[in-house]
Amino acid sequence: MKKNKITSLPIWKKLENHARLMEANDKHLKVLLQDPQRLEKFSLQDAGIFYDFSRQRVDEEAMELLFELAEARNLTVRFEAMMRGDKVNTTENRAALHTAARDFSGNPVVVDGTDVAPMIKKVREDIELFSRQVHQGEIRGSTGKPFEHIVVIGIGGSYLGAQFISEALKAYADRGISLHYLANVDIHNFGEIVSSIEPETTLWIVISKSYTTAETMANAAQAKAYMEKQGLDPSKHFVAVTAKGSPGDDPSAPVIRAFHMFDFFGGRYSVSSAVGGLPLSLYLGYERFEAFLKGAEEIDIHTRTAPIQENIPLIAALIAVWNNNFLGYPAQGIVPYAEPLHKLAPHIQQLNMESNGKYVSAGGEIMDIATGPIIFGEPGTNAQHSFFQLAHQGRPFPGDFIGAVNPQYTEYRSKSRGVTNYQELWANLIAQPMALAMGKEDPNSAKFFPGNRPSSTILANSLKPKDVGRLLAFYEARTVYEAFIWDINPFDQFGVELGKTLAAEARKEMAAKNENADYSFESVDPITRHYLEVMFKGEI
Amino acid sequence: MKKNKITSLPIWKKLENHARLMEANDKHLKVLLQDPQRLEKFSLQDAGIFYDFSRQRVDEEAMELLFELAEARNLTVRFEAMMRGDKVNTTENRAALHTAARDFSGNPVVVDGTDVAPMIKKVREDIELFSRQVHQGEIRGSTGKPFEHIVVIGIGGSYLGAQFISEALKAYADRGISLHYLANVDIHNFGEIVSSIEPETTLWIVISKSYTTAETMANAAQAKAYMEKQGLDPSKHFVAVTAKGSPGDDPSAPVIRAFHMFDFFGGRYSVSSAVGGLPLSLYLGYERFEAFLKGAEEIDIHTRTAPIQENIPLIAALIAVWNNNFLGYPAQGIVPYAEPLHKLAPHIQQLNMESNGKYVSAGGEIMDIATGPIIFGEPGTNAQHSFFQLAHQGRPFPGDFIGAVNPQYTEYRSKSRGVTNYQELWANLIAQPMALAMGKEDPNSAKFFPGNRPSSTILANSLKPKDVGRLLAFYEARTVYEAFIWDINPFDQFGVELGKTLAAEARKEMAAKNENADYSFESVDPITRHYLEVMFKGEI
Repeated sequence: MKKNKITSLPIWKKLENHARLMEANDKHLKVLLQDPQRLEKFSLQDAGIFYDFSRQRVDEEAMELLFELAEARNLTVRFEAMMRGDKVNTTENRAALHTAARDFSGNPVVVDGTDVAPMIKKVREDIELFSRQVHQGEIRGSTGKPFEHIVVIGIGGSYLGAQFISEALKAYADRGISLHYLANVDIHNFGEIVSSIEPETTLWIVISKSYTTAETMANAAQAKAYMEKQGLDPSKHFVAVTAKGSPGDDPSAPVIRAFHMFDFFGGRYSVSSAVGGLPLSLYLGYERFEAFLKGAEEIDIHTRTAPIQENIPLIAALIAVWNNNFLGYPAQGIVPYAEPLHKLAPHIQQLNMESNGKYVSAGGEIMDIATGPIIFGEPGTNAQHSFFQLAHQGRPFPGDFIGAVNPQYTEYRSKSRGVTNYQELWANLIAQPMALAMGKEDPNSAKFFPGNRPSSTILANSLKPKDVGRLLAFYEARTVYEAFIWDINPFDQFGVELGKTLAAEARKEMAAKNENADYSFESVDPITRHYLEVMFKGEI
Repeated sequence: MKKNKITSLPIWKKLENHARLMEANDKHLKVLLQDPQRLEKFSLQDAGIFYDFSRQRVDEEAMELLFELAEARNLTVRFEAMMRGDKVNTTENRAALHTAARDFSGNPVVVDGTDVAPMIKKVREDIELFSRQVHQGEIRGSTGKPFEHIVVIGIGGSYLGAQFISEALKAYADRGISLHYLANVDIHNFGEIVSSIEPETTLWIVISKSYTTAETMANAAQAKAYMEKQGLDPSKHFVAVTAKGSPGDDPSAPVIRAFHMFDFFGGRYSVSSAVGGLPLSLYLGYERFEAFLKGAEEIDIHTRTAPIQENIPLIAALIAVWNNNFLGYPAQGIVPYAEPLHKLAPHIQQLNMESNGKYVSAGGEIMDIATGPIIFGEPGTNAQHSFFQLAHQGRPFPGDFIGAVNPQYTEYRSKSRGVTNYQELWANLIAQPMALAMGKEDPNSAKFFPGNRPSSTILANSLKPKDVGRLLAFYEARTVYEAFIWDINPFDQFGVELGKTLAAEARKEMAAKNENADYSFESVDPITRHYLEVMFKGEI
């Protein structure tokens, strides 16, 4: 197969050379941080976000070279093409228009000669109406009781984004509705959820673009069987979010309503569409979902219009590539010092690793460098008591430290050691990036800290819907920009297909054995056979 | 500083050479898996666990060399010394006796000339009695109501283990008690918890060995202030788990009871002690906690007695080191196909990364190789819809696939495509390791799978307390064995100290400003000052 040759670009070579210079002692972060202007030079603020990359292992020369890379890779032109509706998802011949889901400008967005903006707006209006009708008790379950539980049946991109946002904004959930997620096909999930809902007051939202996702369909079938067993009419308890014309959009199918998603919303970018919009509007109220979208829109406008040197997601992407390919860090930590963001890392893990965990270029050539890093994280300060030993004295990795200036709760302001608990949290948010960067000499080698661990700090004013929307759009744009730097396609995911194929083969074997207890697994390899036998025997 | 020279060991060189041979096409997993005896040769079963390493990138020669490494590093002798009470935590001059917490043999375990086994047993008996008294309503809150909510205040090692186990066994929580964890000092956690408890029926468990952990003390103070504000007597609503003689063990302190932990239980290894024992016994009943311990004990006995060639945690550790140092994988995924184990990965992330994220040997020499990997994970099949694109076609990393033959729920057996949902889950558990190993040729490079991605599969019969105890002890022993191979100390964590020191400085600045609004942050560096000013100004 043809090899991609990103490493032969002149700017790539220049960056490689410069990265070697950054290994020198006088480029250690503790030296770079002696510059009193360091923060002014290496931080940006716009669209409600403060982005500080002063503790990244870059100097002015590195940034100049990275901007040159951005020019060479046509980044802003590509981003513009994406937002305009070009088919940037080339392997699947689709546009990627998650930004259009929060474009309130009224401007047309044209795909295949059709302005899709009105379709998108129509779905938002449907959601607004439906959620109001549910909240006002105009739409009720089959026994006439208002809905108090929502169970979202969806997995991956039909789950992680909505979960991240709903957890982040839980403090605002004032509609008397509790929200549950049934993602995994594991019957434990189902068992736990049905032990905590009242079927009569439960609305199930089935989310699947194709309406063929194995886990989602299996869970939807289980949920319907369960509701029927309770003597309830499923057609009064189910709604679907799906593509027009999918099996879930069949008017004869037993659902209250079907909300459309479009093929230009990829799963992991879909939380701004009906995928997030319906559950979040029911849980938080439509106006909060719209505020979330408007925060995201602010970042989209910034990303589309800010020059390279002031473009926050673009610079974050350049630094991610710098850390990954030039400084050699294989992983990236995400550490929000804000417990409501505790599902940010799992969402960004999916967003980034599924988008950028690729080894072929958009043109199908084998990449000559590693692309997306491993993304992981937990909230701080918890993470400090977990994996920060390794961060300080083991394998280094760059970290994103995220904070909100004002908490969602203004009460509970007891002081310990002279500070409130939220101030204690911030004392740590402030201290950790500095400790990682500076290190500390000690004659006792067990207490020596090498330092020079890079990180960024990202601040929002608060954790209101708008702030969370900004944060989401920042990470989406950064992920896309990373892909554009590498020239890979961040919108396809062919790498998940082989597992599905083999799972289908195992399922077929199981179904045959379910039908006929004498069936033996003769056609499969010995290891697969062993596991099938264990499962049917019921013991290891 | 002195350099450690593990790479100059003759066996290390032999392994390096062999690892190069394993890069050959005829050592690709798809070739190795053609051996019909592959599973028999590369799997083990004992103490209730089936461990399959047939999809690891090892051949018989690799295993022989790894066993030679185990001999050279005296692994079984060291493990025996640890279990016997030797001060294997050399930097802190302490024993590491988490195995003694579940040793029901009645044999003495001697530390500094004292048999500690009776002390450990006494604490278990205290827990059994106390939890029975709470369940039977003999111990009640200050207004005479029985306890229905437990809030555990603890962080890191005083939190993650108990959370992992309590989530894993939630289906067995039948004592009418709901369990909450207040770990992070973030006021959002506190706010969310108090919105879901009834203070009159709440028992707070404060867990800190030293009773000086900043977050825990701040949360305990906030909780006491809150209870007092509700007109409740904190001395009837608080218990402590702490070291004998700590500030929390003060008989004049306002707690119902203090349960002792000992300095030979390191935080991340402490879930078998009162740290896990008290919350788990209250939540699940003492007998289930004891069953959990007995499962762990079975693995401890296996680990102590099985010869190297049949020792499951030891072999898992050898393979971890093989993957890390010889094949060059910087990370390790943990993917339980069992939703109750959804907190396994965060617990093992802490256990392993805090234990083995080190760069000095036990003797204080700088290591000449990387030690602990980055550990991350999510349950399958969720993970398949998240980061498995990267696993298949991006940056490879070894994975642990974990399954339980029998689910905790036996109802809900609707079938889709001929299989139950639990069978669907298993179809994926069976398929993924094979897909990762085998790969697939395809003329379309976007659909080509390189394969040769290594993984292990670990099975338990079910997810009962005993099974979960076995799984815990397996990972604990494996972590310790990895450290013994490298000759690092897996029981200290000096790498977290610098962050604490800098946080204390930031806290001091904040306290000064709280005292005097005119205080300006003149003595700190410009970046720290900026963040302090933002916090007090209340906006970015």
